[in-house]
Order: sequence, then structure tokens, then C-alpha cells
Amino acid sequence: MLRNDQLDQWDRDSFFHPSTHLAEFARGNLPQRVVTGGSGCYIQDRDGTRLLDAFAGLYCVNVGYGRSEIADAIAEQAKELAYYHAYMGHGTEASITLAKMILDRAPSHMSRVYFGLSGSDANETNIKLVWYANNILGRPEKKKIISRWRGYHGSGLVTGSLTGLELFHKKFDLPLPPVLHTQAPYYFRRPDRSMSEADFVTHCVTELEQLIETQGADTIAAFIGEPVLGTGGIVPPPDGYWPAIQAVLDKHDILLIADEVVTGFGRLGSMFGSDHYGMRPDIMTIAKGLTSAYAPLSGSIISEKLWSVLEQGTDENGPIGHGWTYSAHPVSAAAGVANLQLIDAQDLVAQAGAVGAYLNAAMADALKGHPHVGEVRGEGMLCAVELVRDADASVFFGADEKVGPRVAAHMLEHAKVIARAMPQGDILGFAPPFCLTKGQADEIVAATVQAIAATLQ
Amino acid sequence: MLRNDQLDQWDRDSFFHPSTHLAEFARGNLPQRVVTGGSGCYIQDRDGTRLLDAFAGLYCVNVGYGRSEIADAIAEQAKELAYYHAYMGHGTEASITLAKMILDRAPSHMSRVYFGLSGSDANETNIKLVWYANNILGRPEKKKIISRWRGYHGSGLVTGSLTGLELFHKKFDLPLPPVLHTQAPYYFRRPDRSMSEADFVTHCVTELEQLIETQGADTIAAFIGEPVLGTGGIVPPPDGYWPAIQAVLDKHDILLIADEVVTGFGRLGSMFGSDHYGMRPDIMTIAKGLTSAYAPLSGSIISEKLWSVLEQGTDENGPIGHGWTYSAHPVSAAAGVANLQLIDAQDLVAQAGAVGAYLNAAMADALKGHPHVGEVRGEGMLCAVELVRDADASVFFGADEKVGPRVAAHMLEHAKVIARAMPQGDILGFAPPFCLTKGQADEIVAATVQAIAATLQ
Repeated sequence: MLRNDQLDQWDRDSFFHPSTHLAEFARGNLPQRVVTGGSGCYIQDRDGTRLLDAFAGLYCVNVGYGRSEIADAIAEQAKELAYYHAYMGHGTEASITLAKMILDRAPSHMSRVYFGLSGSDANETNIKLVWYANNILGRPEKKKIISRWRGYHGSGLVTGSLTGLELFHKKFDLPLPPVLHTQAPYYFRRPDRSMSEADFVTHCVTELEQLIETQGADTIAAFIGEPVLGTGGIVPPPDGYWPAIQAVLDKHDILLIADEVVTGFGRLGSMFGSDHYGMRPDIMTIAKGLTSAYAPLSGSIISEKLWSVLEQGTDENGPIGHGWTYSAHPVSAAAGVANLQLIDAQDLVAQAGAVGAYLNAAMADALKGHPHVGEVRGEGMLCAVELVRDADASVFFGADEKVGPRVAAHMLEHAKVIARAMPQGDILGFAPPFCLTKGQADEIVAATVQAIAATLQ
Repeated sequence: MLRNDQLDQWDRDSFFHPSTHLAEFARGNLPQRVVTGGSGCYIQDRDGTRLLDAFAGLYCVNVGYGRSEIADAIAEQAKELAYYHAYMGHGTEASITLAKMILDRAPSHMSRVYFGLSGSDANETNIKLVWYANNILGRPEKKKIISRWRGYHGSGLVTGSLTGLELFHKKFDLPLPPVLHTQAPYYFRRPDRSMSEADFVTHCVTELEQLIETQGADTIAAFIGEPVLGTGGIVPPPDGYWPAIQAVLDKHDILLIADEVVTGFGRLGSMFGSDHYGMRPDIMTIAKGLTSAYAPLSGSIISEKLWSVLEQGTDENGPIGHGWTYSAHPVSAAAGVANLQLIDAQDLVAQAGAVGAYLNAAMADALKGHPHVGEVRGEGMLCAVELVRDADASVFFGADEKVGPRVAAHMLEHAKVIARAMPQGDILGFAPPFCLTKGQADEIVAATVQAIAATLQ
């Protein structure tokens, strides 16, 4: 591999980076970072800089970097059998074993696992299956999908439509028609400051019910939501939100898709967000934490009820016309098996809960009463700090001030800590690997306090 | 790993296989195969059966099974750094190097590579970029995408709409509105048997021009096509097809997306199908052959012309709101680098051309004049045998007779050779690894002749 300046030029001239200002990067006006290694909560780049990654990649390297147990499993599978497809009843020991392991961890009413590559493609699969099922059930009009503003469910054409964030819609003609959006359960940004949490839950539920009534329940197939809003701001739901939403969905025979891409496999200190909040999903979307990102893999966990409709569908219509060449890729499946074994062996779900609670408490404590901190919130190993112009009056900064990105950039430069400036609002996001120590949590908190002070003097 | 009957039960009870009759598989009425290893053109299952894989997985294991060069590269990358994201100017040596290597092999007017996971998600990216570009260019109405009947471009909601095959539409409410379909360049199934190849090209071009005229060229953004129709029947285009289509597209300022997922990196005996047929695409979709399926990876190769519009877009609107967490996954990129190096080192593109020509000639020779063989066709290491009730009168079998699947099943059972019964029509598809020997080609031909004889007595 090359370690000279040629690599920089190749990068500028050849590589189309996601979520990047393409022109500025090509002109050399944006920083470039070539990451070469990692261990635990740290990554290292080719210039020798070592960074504490308080966002675990893109909240996906849940077990931390440099886990030889997973690398070895990948190596062994690649050597033994790097690929065979899973079509028409084919499989590998790794993929079958992983399907079983996932179901052992999922709520007991779940029945089958379809494997994809990314959270986006898993949600694509989910919508296809929901549409297919309603055709089989003889209700072809019941097809619309309700998502929430600020939800994140992917970056494709339909999955980017499910996503309720402006960055992913602008100039892409999204959202597309089959997708509707309703209020996010984001109490800090409630429409009326006088609302209690309970009032706000009622408000969210009422808005959903009105949407269903306006559109007609017989046109609405499914509701999709992350147990905790992720990219939309890392926002845990108010107490009672999910049971209240679930009741509305049940009443109108609308399926619930729990997008557990961020929350699945322990990030909240529970195996799934659905367990954590008492949701009863018909489909669960999984990705990131499934392999801790050591190899690309996603999945759709299908409930027994939905599965029986899919079976009826193939009895009536023959094989189901859906599949990716790399569904259940053996190398990715082997990474998943090793990852879940490691999480069990080291009790990392409990650690995520315990150290996450410590991080959240320490962050809240350190920023308590800060005039520019509107809210510190989180759940498990997820934490967010929302910055505002005036905390007392709840006045936000202008988007053009780029306060969130500036604070994150300061933390990176001065403290060598990676936080994420969430894309909508001035929100610092933290989602460290589960192996974070309390000492490292303290380091993240100190870096945050210092960066806010330096940026918002 | 488990090697007992538990695995069978787990498979039936837990694993949702793509493109499978779900109910029959769950009931145990469909065969199951757990693949455990492979070498060269052969795979092996846990029952000890060894099979000659004349379809290279799903025409993707181009360099053959068991290549330690690629497995070692995967192992090394997984150990060094299994994951970091590519957002906002981040990268790894493997992903940057691979982007450069792809551009070195692509037509000289291509400029950047965006990495995804699957051919489906790459085509999803492509449509997003085409729409974005036309918004930037101030022509927001120019958004429809023309595809061909029998084209295969993925299995998502919009990419499955691009696909022009009934299996992928039925019960899924596809195709969706932004996609239009036109005539496939499938000479054997021409509407009028008296047409010459040249007449048929004119017919295809006329139909395309009429579609453009009816819809309005200012509503049509792009045309997508595989250089050789793949899953639709393995159909090379008639002479002159691509230049004639290209001229129509150029005239109406319609972008060309060359879906090179099957043809890219050597399957036709040329590096790309675009080179092979003199196409001048604005975007090229790549996947399968990019890593020979050793790890999930796809890509969109973007022309200089389109890239400059994307740069303008980010100058006007800031960072582009598109990305997958696993874009440019380091483990997948390392597999890609090693795969392309291996293809070069062993001159496998030339071998695909030479042995593919041998296979095609031997197949045509062996089946010449057969009353049930309508056509033997192919290009490079792609070959198809189309079975018909009456070759002289060009009468097809009924779909319910399942002639193609029955012949393929016979080959598998008796000759231990994997051919693929293509999903629409009675077409046996062959797409062996490039390392196929002439002796193995003879074996495939003999197995085909025998299976046809046994099935269609």
C-alpha cells in the first residue's frame, strides 16, 4: 500500500466521498483523513494522529476497534468459502447460525431473518414485504408508509423519503409520494413550551390519528420509527410514547417497523430498543451493531404473523421475487456470529448501559445551567448535547452560524475527540463503543465542556 | 460451527432465503444446500457433494473460488482496520487505491467512483445523482428513466422497477411511475421473424424514439441498459444496436447508464461491456466482478461531465446528502484491490475471452440442428441455450412446463454441473469463472446435451 502524497492526489481525483462538499474536497479545501488502524475506542490515521472516537465510526463499531476475534472469524471464512449465494435454499453455516442467533435475541414473536447489506436496503426490503403482504391479504390500497420528521431510515430513493431530514431530500425530489411524515417525539422542540411530557405524547398521538383519519386507515400499511431518534438528533422518546403509538397502530391494523439499526444489539443497554420501550414490531431493521461494522451486513427480522402471509404469498404465486446477490454474504455472516459471541462473552450490553449512564450523568452534570446548553439527553450509550443561543428562552442558533460543526471541529482539533455534529440543529452527538471506560467518558465530557467554552465565548 | 441436523432445522425455521418458495422451503419440501468450500470452478457442500459451478455463484465469482490472494488481503485489512467510514473526506488506503485502479481501467472520460454494497444500491445512487444533476441544471422536469423489458438492474423498489422482468414486479406493485420500459434488443424474440438484425435494430431505435417523443425528451433524464442483457436471458445485442441507441440519447440529451454489474471487469473478454460495444456512458454501475464476490462491494463510475455538475451542486447547496454507512468499506475495498491485481497478474480477461469463445462454439456445435434448441448465444464467458418446443417454427414451451428449470435440475443431479434456469423463458444460462479450462467447458457442454436429451425425450 502506498503511504506517499500520491494517495492524497488519488483521493482528490478519484474518490467520491459520501456526505461531502464534492467541489471543496476536489479543490483541496477540505481536510482529508486516511485512517490506518484502530484499537478499542481509538483510531489512528496515516499522519500518526490518534483520536478518541466518541461516535464509533457512524455509531456502528459497537465492540470497538481491533477485535481480533472478529477479524479472525472473517479471515477464516474468507479462506474457507468467501462466497456462495443464499437463493433457492442455499446457505452457509455462518449465515444459518447467525439467523438463529438473531432470533434467540429478538422478541419471541419474531420468526425469520432476511439478510441485506445496509440499513437502507433492509428498509427497502421491509417496504417491499409490507406491500407484498397487503396484496396477498387482498387490500391493495393499504400501501402508504408513515414515518416521522427527523427519522433516519436510509439514503435511497424510497428509504431517503422515509428519512425526515432536509439534507437528504434537498435537490433529490424527495420525499416520494408513498411516504407521509408525522411529528417527531422530540420534547425539547415541542410546539408549545408549556406542554408537559404527557401533553406532548398526546399531541404526537393526536397528530398521528388525524393523519390516519385524513388519509384513511385503509390506505396506510405501516409506521416506521427508530426507538430513539438517531441522526435526527439522538432523542429518546417521552415516557409513554411508544405504548400510545402502538395502540393507535393496532387499532388501525397498521404494521410497526422498528428501525433498530442504531439501537439493535445493545446500544441502549438492552438487546433491542423494542425491548427497552415495550414496542411490539412486525418488522425490525438491523444493521450496524449486527457486525459492529467489521463487514457489511443488515437484516430484516420478520414477525410470525407477517411471515405466515409471506408463506401464503409463495403458495399462491411461487418463489418471491426479491433478493440481493450478497444477501447473507458468508464473510459478513461470520463477522456477525463472532460479534454477537463477543458481546455475550464480555457482557457488553450491560457495559453499554452502565458506562452510558455514567457518560450521560457526567455530561449533564458538567453542563448543568450552561447558558448555551438547552438540553443534555440520552439513553444507554447514546448522548446528545443541544446547543442554543439562549437556554432560558429556548432560542436556537441560526443554521448559518454552524455552531454544532464548529464545536465538533474544535473538539477534534484540540482534544482529539470525535463527536458528531448532527445534521439538523446544533446538536453534538456521542455514541462511543460499548467498551468505553469511565475514564474515557470523563475525557469526552471534559473535551465537550472545553470546546463549547472556546467556541461560544 | 455445527455440522449436525440442527443446522437444517435452524435453516428451515430461521432463515429467509431470497428468491425462494418460502412456504415450501419452511415445510421441508425444497432442497437445502449448505455450501462449505470451493476451489477454482468447484464448490463443495456439507454432504461432500462437489459441483462444477458453471454460473460462478450468481455470475460473480469471476476469478473462481478459493483464491488465497484475496482471502489474505481481506484477513490483513480486517486485522489492521476493519472499518472506518468514508464520509466528509475520510478514507482508507484500500478504498482510495481501488478508486484509482477502477478509473485506470474505465473509459478515459470517467472521473470519480462512488462505492456502495450491491448493484441495486449503486443503481439507486445513479438515479439520485441523475435527478440531482438535472435539478442543478435547472431542468426539474427531466427525471424519467427509460429501461428495457428484460433488463435487470436490481431488486429494490425503484431498481426493481428498472428491472423489466415479471418475477420482480408481481405482487410488489412495480414498476413505479418514474420508470418507463422499451423493447429489449432480443433478436431471437423479435416481433416479426422476417426481420433482419439490421431491421430489428431499426425497430428498437424507432420504438425508443417514439417513447421519447410521446413522453417528451424534456421529461426523460436517463436510459439504463446492460451491455449484454443478463438475467433477462443472456442476450448480446445485435450488431449496431448500441451506437444507434447512443445517437438517439445524444440527440435528446439523455444520459446513458451502462449497468456493467455482470459485464464489468472482464466477463466479455474486454474490461467493460462499454469498451466492447463502443458505448459512451455517463455512469457505469459495477459490482459482482469488482471483488469477485469475496466481499460485498459495488460502485458508480461517474463521467467528468456529470461530476462537474455534482461539484456545481455542492458549491450551490453544500455537502451532498447521500451516503451509506458502509460506502467504501475497507474490507470490501481490500478484496477489490486484490481481485483486480489477480485478474491482471493471471491475464484473466483474455482467458475469459478465449475460453468463453471456446465454450460458446462447443455448445453451438453440440446442439446444432437440435429440434428443441432455438438458439445458442453468448459473448465472452457468457453463454445461453434457449429451449423451444419447435425450433423450426419458433414455438416456445408454456411457462407451466418449467422446461428450463427441469433441465437445470437434471444437470445438477446427474452431472453435478450448476447451470442457471433464467427466470423468464426456458433459457439455460452459463457464466463460469474465468479460470474455466477447455476441459471443463467440454464437461459443461456434455452435461447440457445429456440433460436436454433426458428431459425432452
